[in-house]
Amino acid sequence: MTVNRRFLLWRRPQGEPVPEDFELVTEPLPELAEGQFLIRNHYASLDPAMRGWMDDADSYMPPIPLGAPVRASTIGVVEASRAEGFAPGQWVMGLNGIEDYSVGTVGGFTQPIDPGLVPSVTNYLSLFGAVGMTAYFGLFEVCEPKPGDTVLVSGAAGAVGSIVGQLAKIHGCKTIGIAGGAEKCKRLTERYGFDVAIDYRGKDEAALTAEIAAAAPNGVDVIFENVGGIILDAGLANLAMNARVGLCGLISEYNSEEPVGARNLWRLIVKRASIRGLLVADYVARFGEGAAKMGEWAAQGRINIDEHVDEGIENAYSAFMRLFSGSNQGKMILKI
Amino acid sequence: MTVNRRFLLWRRPQGEPVPEDFELVTEPLPELAEGQFLIRNHYASLDPAMRGWMDDADSYMPPIPLGAPVRASTIGVVEASRAEGFAPGQWVMGLNGIEDYSVGTVGGFTQPIDPGLVPSVTNYLSLFGAVGMTAYFGLFEVCEPKPGDTVLVSGAAGAVGSIVGQLAKIHGCKTIGIAGGAEKCKRLTERYGFDVAIDYRGKDEAALTAEIAAAAPNGVDVIFENVGGIILDAGLANLAMNARVGLCGLISEYNSEEPVGARNLWRLIVKRASIRGLLVADYVARFGEGAAKMGEWAAQGRINIDEHVDEGIENAYSAFMRLFSGSNQGKMILKI
Repeated sequence: MTVNRRFLLWRRPQGEPVPEDFELVTEPLPELAEGQFLIRNHYASLDPAMRGWMDDADSYMPPIPLGAPVRASTIGVVEASRAEGFAPGQWVMGLNGIEDYSVGTVGGFTQPIDPGLVPSVTNYLSLFGAVGMTAYFGLFEVCEPKPGDTVLVSGAAGAVGSIVGQLAKIHGCKTIGIAGGAEKCKRLTERYGFDVAIDYRGKDEAALTAEIAAAAPNGVDVIFENVGGIILDAGLANLAMNARVGLCGLISEYNSEEPVGARNLWRLIVKRASIRGLLVADYVARFGEGAAKMGEWAAQGRINIDEHVDEGIENAYSAFMRLFSGSNQGKMILKI
Repeated sequence: MTVNRRFLLWRRPQGEPVPEDFELVTEPLPELAEGQFLIRNHYASLDPAMRGWMDDADSYMPPIPLGAPVRASTIGVVEASRAEGFAPGQWVMGLNGIEDYSVGTVGGFTQPIDPGLVPSVTNYLSLFGAVGMTAYFGLFEVCEPKPGDTVLVSGAAGAVGSIVGQLAKIHGCKTIGIAGGAEKCKRLTERYGFDVAIDYRGKDEAALTAEIAAAAPNGVDVIFENVGGIILDAGLANLAMNARVGLCGLISEYNSEEPVGARNLWRLIVKRASIRGLLVADYVARFGEGAAKMGEWAAQGRINIDEHVDEGIENAYSAFMRLFSGSNQGKMILKI
């Protein structure tokens, strides 16, 4: 008998998630109602934002209910269908859960995808998915870089940051990336084309501020912020006049009970600069446009796609925690 | 013999300024070179921003040099002149210092003013000066309120905040003001027309957050921020979708060695909101436009102008410190 292994949120994490916050259960396959189809999930996207969904807090999306599978973008194949437009064998992508099988509904978030259009079907979770679209629309629509601008990216070796750096470079900007460790910094310059890589490890805010200042003597025109805390403050200390900060994420705070926040807001006044929050969901209607540009640049060899695939739903916890330890290189994906 | 009493910055304040940071000296009148004119200062504007100029820090203006008079906007009368266009008896306004006499230069910041155009010449330091123009351009250009929007103003009983509230009301917005103490809150609703007044005294961030939420059940579309710290964080916790925060000042932090900052930046992502720093200096070329609108509304009795005038250069320190204790009601002015 085929069963459904499901990685459930069992308890709301306090600070850093621990294995006991989750439970891997085995359940019978769900039954399909009219208009539904059964998805065999092959890959799940693991993203920092999922940590926020585990909290019982008002956000842009409801919290993951306790006892429900951890919400994630997944790619899979239709296994059975009572829904028009979704036939068995069809590849699909949607916001489902970390589980072998999910039920899709016509009109829901799950959409057909064509694996023939991309080098690997998993690219729908990286360059051509929310990650790539976050980089594309976040950089170009929210940060509005001009050619010649200096663009600072934090979390620059991460899934979004590494793409942002490459897009800014294509756009004719000088790019400075911040990442943790010598190996990642080497990747920033050698693989993602950053002009300067800054290793934040073991440095306080003053040291980071000085290092950014040395790399950007005229200040930074754009910050693409994924991290927050002292890294954001060091960036704010180096703003150029009329600079734009796109606030994409605050991973340094997701597991802390007490956020550090930003203490250099005064610099926004001095430099007439702005911080704006961005969410990729606002650009869903324009994903086609973004994916077309990405596909073009990827085909020209101007964007490197990196994916880190861990295997096995039983490793969901450890794979997810790589996002916070930074032990992944590239978009974190779980092969279920 | 006529002498020049000058209120000098003697030492850089550590945290809250103390009397020993300043020195009142008596010097001979300055001599005029060709192209210069002598201003007898009658009124000096006292503003929170001056605290920042006392620090030796990179800002939008150089620090006040030690041993120089405390920089301030002043209004006075030309006493002697070797400059074309500035005749004795002419009223002028400019960025000078807290001193009996300043030297103006043709092409500098000092400009002629016409006291016949305003109810009181001091209005050039309040409604028709930097304070009024900060409110006008900060609200309309940076915060972009729409009629029907809910506008939250911190430091709402202050010189800028009280005008912002009145302008937002004229514009058809719902206005919520935050101030310290029952008396000020009474002024907010009775004199400045705020729909709701919130007294921040004795309340923590959670209590303030709840009180704002009760006043703005659909969230705040605009925050005009003068204060920072937990007041800003409580505002951020109540942002409506696509809200705009105009960051005008952070008076809660000007005397603290370690800024508190903003810890609710995550809300910017959830609500796709922005914080933008504003400085009135960017709008100098458009002051005529702003002053004309202000004059119209004032003549219609739609804006109340409040000024708190302390007398005597020997009281410069205590008058300045009212800005931080909040013991003034209206624009703080020193009659020299």
